[in-house]
Amino acid sequence: MSEPRIIQPRTLKGFRDFMPDAMQAREWLIDTARSVFRSYGYAPIDTPALEYSEILLGKGGTDTDRQLYRFDDNGGRDVAMRFDLTVPLARFAAQHIGQLGIPFKRYHVGPVWRAENTQRGRYREFMQCDFDTIGTDSMVADTETVLVIHDTFAALNVGEFSIHINNRKILAGLLAELELADRSVDVLRAIDKLPKIGRDAVATELRGEAGATPTQAETLLAAVAVTGTDQRILEQIGRIARGAADEGVAALTAVFDGLAAADVPANRAKVDISIARGLDYYTGSVFETFLAEIPDIGSVCSGGRYDDLASLYTKQLLPGVGASLGIDRLLAALEDIGRIHTTAASAPILMTLFDADRASDYIAVAAMLRRDGLAVEVYPDGKKLGAQLKYADRKGHRLAVIIGDNEWEAGSAQVKDMTTGDSHTVDLADLASQCRQLLDGSHP
Amino acid sequence: MSEPRIIQPRTLKGFRDFMPDAMQAREWLIDTARSVFRSYGYAPIDTPALEYSEILLGKGGTDTDRQLYRFDDNGGRDVAMRFDLTVPLARFAAQHIGQLGIPFKRYHVGPVWRAENTQRGRYREFMQCDFDTIGTDSMVADTETVLVIHDTFAALNVGEFSIHINNRKILAGLLAELELADRSVDVLRAIDKLPKIGRDAVATELRGEAGATPTQAETLLAAVAVTGTDQRILEQIGRIARGAADEGVAALTAVFDGLAAADVPANRAKVDISIARGLDYYTGSVFETFLAEIPDIGSVCSGGRYDDLASLYTKQLLPGVGASLGIDRLLAALEDIGRIHTTAASAPILMTLFDADRASDYIAVAAMLRRDGLAVEVYPDGKKLGAQLKYADRKGHRLAVIIGDNEWEAGSAQVKDMTTGDSHTVDLADLASQCRQLLDGSHP
Repeated sequence: MSEPRIIQPRTLKGFRDFMPDAMQAREWLIDTARSVFRSYGYAPIDTPALEYSEILLGKGGTDTDRQLYRFDDNGGRDVAMRFDLTVPLARFAAQHIGQLGIPFKRYHVGPVWRAENTQRGRYREFMQCDFDTIGTDSMVADTETVLVIHDTFAALNVGEFSIHINNRKILAGLLAELELADRSVDVLRAIDKLPKIGRDAVATELRGEAGATPTQAETLLAAVAVTGTDQRILEQIGRIARGAADEGVAALTAVFDGLAAADVPANRAKVDISIARGLDYYTGSVFETFLAEIPDIGSVCSGGRYDDLASLYTKQLLPGVGASLGIDRLLAALEDIGRIHTTAASAPILMTLFDADRASDYIAVAAMLRRDGLAVEVYPDGKKLGAQLKYADRKGHRLAVIIGDNEWEAGSAQVKDMTTGDSHTVDLADLASQCRQLLDGSHP
Repeated sequence: MSEPRIIQPRTLKGFRDFMPDAMQAREWLIDTARSVFRSYGYAPIDTPALEYSEILLGKGGTDTDRQLYRFDDNGGRDVAMRFDLTVPLARFAAQHIGQLGIPFKRYHVGPVWRAENTQRGRYREFMQCDFDTIGTDSMVADTETVLVIHDTFAALNVGEFSIHINNRKILAGLLAELELADRSVDVLRAIDKLPKIGRDAVATELRGEAGATPTQAETLLAAVAVTGTDQRILEQIGRIARGAADEGVAALTAVFDGLAAADVPANRAKVDISIARGLDYYTGSVFETFLAEIPDIGSVCSGGRYDDLASLYTKQLLPGVGASLGIDRLLAALEDIGRIHTTAASAPILMTLFDADRASDYIAVAAMLRRDGLAVEVYPDGKKLGAQLKYADRKGHRLAVIIGDNEWEAGSAQVKDMTTGDSHTVDLADLASQCRQLLDGSHP
């Protein structure tokens, strides 16, 4: 007889376990975002992880196809795991919009799967967090999209941030005016490279592949480079485009009027004619969000307006606007700059089990603290106090409560502040309020 | 040229879309449970949806094997989607316990997938919600498991409920005393049928397949049938088993002492010698939870203690105790008995857009209400007021705010209570407090 074989515990390449500290940070971020979404009337939905491949592939891009986890299920159906939350939203809206009614405002937080090359630091399973308003072309919806981004980042306390806003119709109008509309893909591709390759190289590319004359290239570069107050930018753009961009300028003006009405500080939302965000999908407003302390990680919340969400699945025209919060990127960034202080402990207080024979008494005190709204973990084993305090230290509990024979007799407890090392003797009757005071006083 | 083909929007059999009302009920339930878990020091983890099939299959039961969504990924790896959260916990604990330290208390909420026969009303994708304490055999952990179940159901406001508690060692001791230990699988299987087939049929089965003498069968049936106060039950069982069940009785006594210390009402937790919960996995405490209003749906939260969580993946002995909340079953049940009143609206207030030309003014008032902690959806389009109010009614908004020319001039607003139909004229300066008062007054 051989020993029972031990299976080596491991995860697949590109897939991650989340430890309690990382997971608590993720829950905090998602809870914060959901609370903002709800405050604007966005409601949650969920869709299956698995769908018919036909649904997910849609038009079928070769990239999507290659990255799909696709297989035949036990019933022989051609199925695949969702690779984003946008395609499922389109399918969902097409299927249920009659029941849902419009406008339909939803958020959706969940994992998606892509069989990507992990060498680029990408994961094969990651969370997406999207919110959209479907079924209206009102600029109120675009404005609220920006307000949600604003309120979320303000609530996350991530330092200063700025939301860059453009409208694709401005560049489209300008290109029409310059008779370059049929070259828009090449022009936008060149302009998207501005931050990377600089003005001169972009000018060369505009004159080359994009087929612009030197004058046209200069006009385009002047347009995307205008700076100043948002009102002045919009006026300048209007002049440069000689009326051809009026629709886009008016839309952008409406959004900025709304932001001002909601008291969004001017430094947190600005016109940026240079952002285009992809070439096909967005047709109106486009948004990107940058953190002042770490601008080089790129946009942490992006989105925009589209003319028709679900043309693959329904003939009903469904315009919409929304954005996506980059949960993983944001969490990694916030940890880098020390803006997240999570611990493995979900309860700030550890009730030590000084005397295992009195377990029920410790349980009773913990229950009393919980009734007062405090979160308390009871150490289950009667190990030496030193070992229990080491556990509290390692896990990041902020207070340890110690009750020995003398304390039981006196009706008191020792409260040890794990950050400072100070101990306080406290009447059991005052334990909850004293713990609360110590927790409010110490840094999180 | 043919028309672009419309792909029929549909989901796979056994998979579900969650509409906003159902999803809000699910979020409420999960948020409530997480908040209780945290108050006891359980911390969240997450594990991948996809794992090596070898990990998930473990010993490999034929049932598990058949129900697995298993395929070769693009790199030729034999992978599968997780079918529960217990196997991933075992793998996770084996892999990380050195870093985590013990005791390790975790909760895990997430979807699992089983290619089950949907004709039995089962879904192929459903949520699990588990919490466990790993690495201790202290009865404090068993007690806290019951306390978490208690606090969760108390917080969910689902009417009366009772947690039935047993310890497998009691029946095991009794079987040893009766020299039936080697027939325990058949005996427990017969006893598990008590609620369904009744005492006489179980007696027949005990004397038949389980090989018990008529006297042994009577002793067993007497043991599982004892009733009275928990203390009296435990004394009776002790007598019937003549000392052989002392370890189980002592463990159960410790749990009930702890529950009494935490002021759990006696009617909410009771000894029930008849529950066994499966035949192999649990080795100590076992728990089941029943709702008084709908007992026939069976246990809505079950669990127990096990000697060794992760023997497939590590030689380290990891005892533990935990339970699993049946989210889907519970939500369906609560809806059936009218204990859930969710609407499609996530914000209770709809700000109507009476005059689309003043969109920014409505955005400003909504922003003011949000600063006061109220959730407000702004209707984006300048449709007729009747259509906007119909939208509010359909989605379940509780208040609609209407500001027309007269109100703007007077600095006031109309607040329409969508439940009663009453309208109130309110100064804009008092709008937040008046809305709050109306929301607190009306039923949810």
